[in-house]
Amino acid sequence: MTDFFKGIPEIKYEGPDSSNEFAFKHYNPDEMLMGKRMADHLRFSIAYWHSFAWEGGDPFGGRTFDRPWFGSSMDAAKLKADVAFEMFRILGAPFYAFHDLDVRPEGDSFAENQSRLDEIADVFAGKMEETGTKLLWGTANLFTHRRFMSGAATNPDPEVFAWSAATIKGCMDVTHKLGGQNYVLWGGREGYETLLNTDLAQERKQAGRMLQMVVDYKHKIGFDGAILVEPKPQEPSKHQYDYDVATVYGFLKEFGLEGEVQMNIEQGHAILAGHSFEHELAMAASLGILGSIDMNKNDYQSGWDTDQFPTNVPEVALAYYEVLKAGGFNTGGTNFDAKLRRQSLDPEDLILGHVGAMDVCARGLKAAAAMLEDGKLEEARAARYAGWNDAPWLDMDLEAIEAKVRADGVNPEPRSGRQERLENLVNSYL
Amino acid sequence: MTDFFKGIPEIKYEGPDSSNEFAFKHYNPDEMLMGKRMADHLRFSIAYWHSFAWEGGDPFGGRTFDRPWFGSSMDAAKLKADVAFEMFRILGAPFYAFHDLDVRPEGDSFAENQSRLDEIADVFAGKMEETGTKLLWGTANLFTHRRFMSGAATNPDPEVFAWSAATIKGCMDVTHKLGGQNYVLWGGREGYETLLNTDLAQERKQAGRMLQMVVDYKHKIGFDGAILVEPKPQEPSKHQYDYDVATVYGFLKEFGLEGEVQMNIEQGHAILAGHSFEHELAMAASLGILGSIDMNKNDYQSGWDTDQFPTNVPEVALAYYEVLKAGGFNTGGTNFDAKLRRQSLDPEDLILGHVGAMDVCARGLKAAAAMLEDGKLEEARAARYAGWNDAPWLDMDLEAIEAKVRADGVNPEPRSGRQERLENLVNSYL
Amino acid sequence: MTDFFKGIPEIKYEGPDSSNEFAFKHYNPDEMLMGKRMADHLRFSIAYWHSFAWEGGDPFGGRTFDRPWFGSSMDAAKLKADVAFEMFRILGAPFYAFHDLDVRPEGDSFAENQSRLDEIADVFAGKMEETGTKLLWGTANLFTHRRFMSGAATNPDPEVFAWSAATIKGCMDVTHKLGGQNYVLWGGREGYETLLNTDLAQERKQAGRMLQMVVDYKHKIGFDGAILVEPKPQEPSKHQYDYDVATVYGFLKEFGLEGEVQMNIEQGHAILAGHSFEHELAMAASLGILGSIDMNKNDYQSGWDTDQFPTNVPEVALAYYEVLKAGGFNTGGTNFDAKLRRQSLDPEDLILGHVGAMDVCARGLKAAAAMLEDGKLEEARAARYAGWNDAPWLDMDLEAIEAKVRADGVNPEPRSGRQERLENLVNSYL
Amino acid sequence: MTDFFKGIPEIKYEGPDSSNEFAFKHYNPDEMLMGKRMADHLRFSIAYWHSFAWEGGDPFGGRTFDRPWFGSSMDAAKLKADVAFEMFRILGAPFYAFHDLDVRPEGDSFAENQSRLDEIADVFAGKMEETGTKLLWGTANLFTHRRFMSGAATNPDPEVFAWSAATIKGCMDVTHKLGGQNYVLWGGREGYETLLNTDLAQERKQAGRMLQMVVDYKHKIGFDGAILVEPKPQEPSKHQYDYDVATVYGFLKEFGLEGEVQMNIEQGHAILAGHSFEHELAMAASLGILGSIDMNKNDYQSGWDTDQFPTNVPEVALAYYEVLKAGGFNTGGTNFDAKLRRQSLDPEDLILGHVGAMDVCARGLKAAAAMLEDGKLEEARAARYAGWNDAPWLDMDLEAIEAKVRADGVNPEPRSGRQERLENLVNSYL
Repeated sequence: MTDFFKGIPEIKYEGPDSSNEFAFKHYNPDEMLMGKRMADHLRFSIAYWHSFAWEGGDPFGGRTFDRPWFGSSMDAAKLKADVAFEMFRILGAPFYAFHDLDVRPEGDSFAENQSRLDEIADVFAGKMEETGTKLLWGTANLFTHRRFMSGAATNPDPEVFAWSAATIKGCMDVTHKLGGQNYVLWGGREGYETLLNTDLAQERKQAGRMLQMVVDYKHKIGFDGAILVEPKPQEPSKHQYDYDVATVYGFLKEFGLEGEVQMNIEQGHAILAGHSFEHELAMAASLGILGSIDMNKNDYQSGWDTDQFPTNVPEVALAYYEVLKAGGFNTGGTNFDAKLRRQSLDPEDLILGHVGAMDVCARGLKAAAAMLEDGKLEEARAARYAGWNDAPWLDMDLEAIEAKVRADGVNPEPRSGRQERLENLVNSYL
Repeated sequence: MTDFFKGIPEIKYEGPDSSNEFAFKHYNPDEMLMGKRMADHLRFSIAYWHSFAWEGGDPFGGRTFDRPWFGSSMDAAKLKADVAFEMFRILGAPFYAFHDLDVRPEGDSFAENQSRLDEIADVFAGKMEETGTKLLWGTANLFTHRRFMSGAATNPDPEVFAWSAATIKGCMDVTHKLGGQNYVLWGGREGYETLLNTDLAQERKQAGRMLQMVVDYKHKIGFDGAILVEPKPQEPSKHQYDYDVATVYGFLKEFGLEGEVQMNIEQGHAILAGHSFEHELAMAASLGILGSIDMNKNDYQSGWDTDQFPTNVPEVALAYYEVLKAGGFNTGGTNFDAKLRRQSLDPEDLILGHVGAMDVCARGLKAAAAMLEDGKLEEARAARYAGWNDAPWLDMDLEAIEAKVRADGVNPEPRSGRQERLENLVNSYL
Repeated sequence: MTDFFKGIPEIKYEGPDSSNEFAFKHYNPDEMLMGKRMADHLRFSIAYWHSFAWEGGDPFGGRTFDRPWFGSSMDAAKLKADVAFEMFRILGAPFYAFHDLDVRPEGDSFAENQSRLDEIADVFAGKMEETGTKLLWGTANLFTHRRFMSGAATNPDPEVFAWSAATIKGCMDVTHKLGGQNYVLWGGREGYETLLNTDLAQERKQAGRMLQMVVDYKHKIGFDGAILVEPKPQEPSKHQYDYDVATVYGFLKEFGLEGEVQMNIEQGHAILAGHSFEHELAMAASLGILGSIDMNKNDYQSGWDTDQFPTNVPEVALAYYEVLKAGGFNTGGTNFDAKLRRQSLDPEDLILGHVGAMDVCARGLKAAAAMLEDGKLEEARAARYAGWNDAPWLDMDLEAIEAKVRADGVNPEPRSGRQERLENLVNSYL
Repeated sequence: MTDFFKGIPEIKYEGPDSSNEFAFKHYNPDEMLMGKRMADHLRFSIAYWHSFAWEGGDPFGGRTFDRPWFGSSMDAAKLKADVAFEMFRILGAPFYAFHDLDVRPEGDSFAENQSRLDEIADVFAGKMEETGTKLLWGTANLFTHRRFMSGAATNPDPEVFAWSAATIKGCMDVTHKLGGQNYVLWGGREGYETLLNTDLAQERKQAGRMLQMVVDYKHKIGFDGAILVEPKPQEPSKHQYDYDVATVYGFLKEFGLEGEVQMNIEQGHAILAGHSFEHELAMAASLGILGSIDMNKNDYQSGWDTDQFPTNVPEVALAYYEVLKAGGFNTGGTNFDAKLRRQSLDPEDLILGHVGAMDVCARGLKAAAAMLEDGKLEEARAARYAGWNDAPWLDMDLEAIEAKVRADGVNPEPRSGRQERLENLVNSYL
């Protein structure tokens, strides 16, 4: 036991009337909703990077946090692991997620990186065994080191492609070994800074080939988790190829991978792409590629990724509504890809940021479940399209339609879309 | 001859030293570039709607223009046609483009709409014969009338789908009859205002079916122009399904139409989707679906579609560079989907807005052609990717790559992306 | 009695468990909060223009609504007034607000406009007497008619300035006569479309002079309501001079009017200016110029003014928190400058849009009042700045400070800003 | 002499036909424009921080540059100075600008920071003497160190205010000693991350007092340069108090400092605030507070500060047009607050980024000067407002105006704003 969180109790459910900062008011893991434990609906996961690896820097300032595990030694990495698993325990978080670079110091060679990762993975395995915490997903950080500055899979230098492929293999191996339920690819540098030096067709070919290799390797090693792509439109790149769900869908179709790969969707990335979170979720669900979510919010007015803990229950409710309507998570879960504000220096802040977020999610989930079980919203939606149940038009061609429109004197009168009534309805569950 | 443009001469090329407002300084139709007449590269087209049908209104104000042809009679429509073809003649514009609603008053039934359209089409046929002006594309306005408020192809009411299909057929017939070189679909209402009342999967199915019907009908009637979809992310809808080029590509792939349909790309729509114009052009070219362009600009800081005449030569040059690199226009062209500012009331403004735009395009094209012929930019691009010419990695799998990375001690060192040098190079042609 | 709202009952408070669409679940006018009736805190006002004058058009489509009072006759205007006051009664709205153009048809001359306005004002006076509905504010529409296309007070044509001044006088007279509690100026066309034809210094001078005249006239006629300026950054103009609260403050300071003029702040306009609503409210409060609010929301991702009914309780709570902390409304109130979505065609939609909004405001107000009465948030804020209570630095100069910093070895250590804890605290009231 | 720029020649003017990358094609320092040397119009300045202190990091990646002077020793600082002055010489840049943190390593105390700054200032003094390079401005970095995370002047902790004040004094002393022509304040952390923990009135008071102290100290030490505030709306803070020119103007008015402080305006910051660069320049000029410019551009579609070298001549021309129209720079100049893209690793990139930018500015300036000397744009502007030359309205009151409007039957007819013609006119100089 480290003393980083000294004095902070395990967080327990105390109900909505509790005024204890260090208690859940809404997240009650064993409470049943739609026949399933709340914990099994939400499948909370803590992100290693923001909580333990990020130092509080921004483009205009350096490290604000002062953590005992900052440093580049393996000892520091192990201390970090100790604190991380203590936090998972305090929060009662069933899952966590990590990049290779979050958990081991960067080495001088590919081989050194891998051996360090393997060493830490063994530490993790022991802790997971001990605590019951599970791995939601693993991933490779292919964007921080300068070798990736011009891309990983899409780099003009083939050796960076090779390094990236080898690193992905290593991370998939570790994820598999640790029983990870998904493997994620986020292509922060898979994009461009200027079109002037970029060959879009070539880079697309490289990216497609890499994704095929990942899918092939998954099958080869018998990894039965999902392969997830995480869309983002820009930042750090000026343009990223995995812009949004619809864009990635086109990419998957081009390479015949739409049955093999699903989406990990983040609210903040949706916002940056000009979409609401629920839009991206609904779009993925309608295309059959909804996998998992990153439940952190973006400031609507900061044009960069702010990765804040969720706070707005009505927004969160609409997101879970889409998840529940699509059948809930399978291998996916609710990952908090959220960081403290850089002014939130204290260990308590780290705990309470998550506590608040988990409660917000619980409230959103309960509202979403009530809304879905009640059925009024879906009834209204179905009623709006009811005319299609026996409409002939989709089976005709333009000429036949035109003839029938003339013959029948078709001249449709518009009907109210009832948006405000539906908004009131949604608010009645909140 | 009407007297609307009385006193305004035909616009002729006078060269860069001319100070005559009513002359081209850069657009010289017969000047040869890369073995082709400038006019045949640019293929300018005038948009009927903005120049002749739009009345100068905005969300906070009504009609500012005071045109003799405003009104809802067929006589007014014919006067409008007279003035339009006079303007085409004055500008020496080889092409024009129109929606059905631009050219004929709305009738009380589908049949009346069609007969009015046919009547005007005959007027157009005569004028085209007389003047040599050609039709770049026709299209159906499926967004202005209240029946389309909840979509055309994607309407929850099947009769609106039917009306839309019949109307498209009529517009395709007229476009075909007038020798139109393309048929365009812009889905301003094919999207949603709120997800709460929307069934994305159902609407997607409807949209896909409609596009298949259009393609089928094209083949049936032997229309050998291109079918073009025009992406736009939002406005008037909160979300439009044809968000951007990459999104439409995914849609085409889903319905197996990627070989049948191309893109009509507008700068303003690209901007609203978070892309540069050249991005959308390059993306379409790399996917093999670049068709035609709407060469009007958006104010970068107004969050709605401002449809301004192009004024910035460096931006226009980068756009034509992508067009030329992709082989130039085939059936496509440069359509000015641009409107006068609503304070620009005079007939002279209408002419001079186009004159300035045509000159801007000519300057951009010349710079683009010089840049492409000189070859330095493409040499630099090719050099950046040269390592891929004999790289083995794309033909390997993750395991084999990892083994080779270890064996060879692969550890790539980054190389400069040289963005500023390339920006300087581009500026040397401007 | 018209039959427009036939069958719709007066909306009564039924409490949170009611499932009656046509009832308030949260707005309970006589419920006491912080020693004041809820109704007296909120001071709801219905906007005449969006609800009765707007026809459902947008830049890509025309009228969708089909109202019996559309038309340009005085009879139509009177029918509109009948329906409007019926709606005020149904909703139990204590206030309403209007522009001259909302209530009377445009005439052929200034004199005709004024006599029509006076005639309608008499109708209003009778209805107000009868129903007890009061006027929150009046204003002049100086943006819709084409004469205002280049500005009202800031027009390059002095006669437009004169017309505008005369019109404002007429509207102030009517507002005064009807017992209006405020007079509002929103300068939709007081800005520019292009800097190329604009003289900023001249237009600023005109705007300042107009505002001085308004203040002078207020005093002359003994109008004891507030003069309110409503900031907006753009739309319809590319740039509007009353960009945001801070900008208007500078303008008021320049012309010595900061003690005479307050702000009418709209959420949607705040968003378009890059601010949160609570930012603009807090800024105005800190500058002593907070007057009234327009409680309608903007879609965060539509770059134009969407004027939607408020739906998000947490956001509304933060807004009322700023209002209550500043002492609550004096002459101001909560005006719904909100319009139905153009697909919401039915009379019921008009009622229910307002019902939902009033309930959202009531919930927000209650949370805000609880938060303020509880005092924890203000305690945390005060504690953060407590060091300043006896700090000497503001009374020193740079040299003295430097000497003391050296002498005392000042070297401050940062302290947590505790953002997440405060966000959790806020959520505990919601 | 270091060997960092080995092989790179001094950049000389070779004219537009030169194909030498390492030559100016447009910037010809001694060429006369409007009676003044081009160099004396432009007054180019190189920013120490981006070119020599920034390491190529972004929020998702670390250092990409590999410079021999990176490190935290005074020796490294001196090597950095050697390379910096070599670059000034190679470019023929007449000015440079720096923050304290750019030039000296951070010490353990205020006293150590100051003595290190003084030591480096002596090195600079020698080099300036030797090379003739002058200091455009100095400034204090009050945002990078963690002590500033919650503000400098506006920090809730009074000791941070004190530290900041002492640091500003030290930087003003050094700037004065080195003959700096301006002293700049940019308040990157003078803003807030959340309103929940912020006291706007208190922070405003602190900021106002600090600025008064700076002005007082300027007079005390006889510094005859200008005090410049640099507006920016956000980033790193969610909201910065110096949002834009109009906001700062209100702040200056509140504290009676509008005659003492001018603006340093950056294109990128203007863009982030929703304005064009020329808007901010024109606004400052009309308010009499235009001081200096940061001539670096922002990507219009990246929602953070990209600080790129200027490349778009038409935009730059409009900016210099406002500068020239306002009488040109006095103490101000053209500072390149621009950084290489992080992929541009080579010493050549650093030189060529500046060479291209200087040529772009020279082209812009020449076009602006021609446009101003020709006078057509100003004639058109004056003509538009000519009616005001003898209009009576500004000297009347509302009642008198109304009476005259009635009496004269005032009913103004709108006149064309001629935007497109003016855009064509501008393009004729480019």
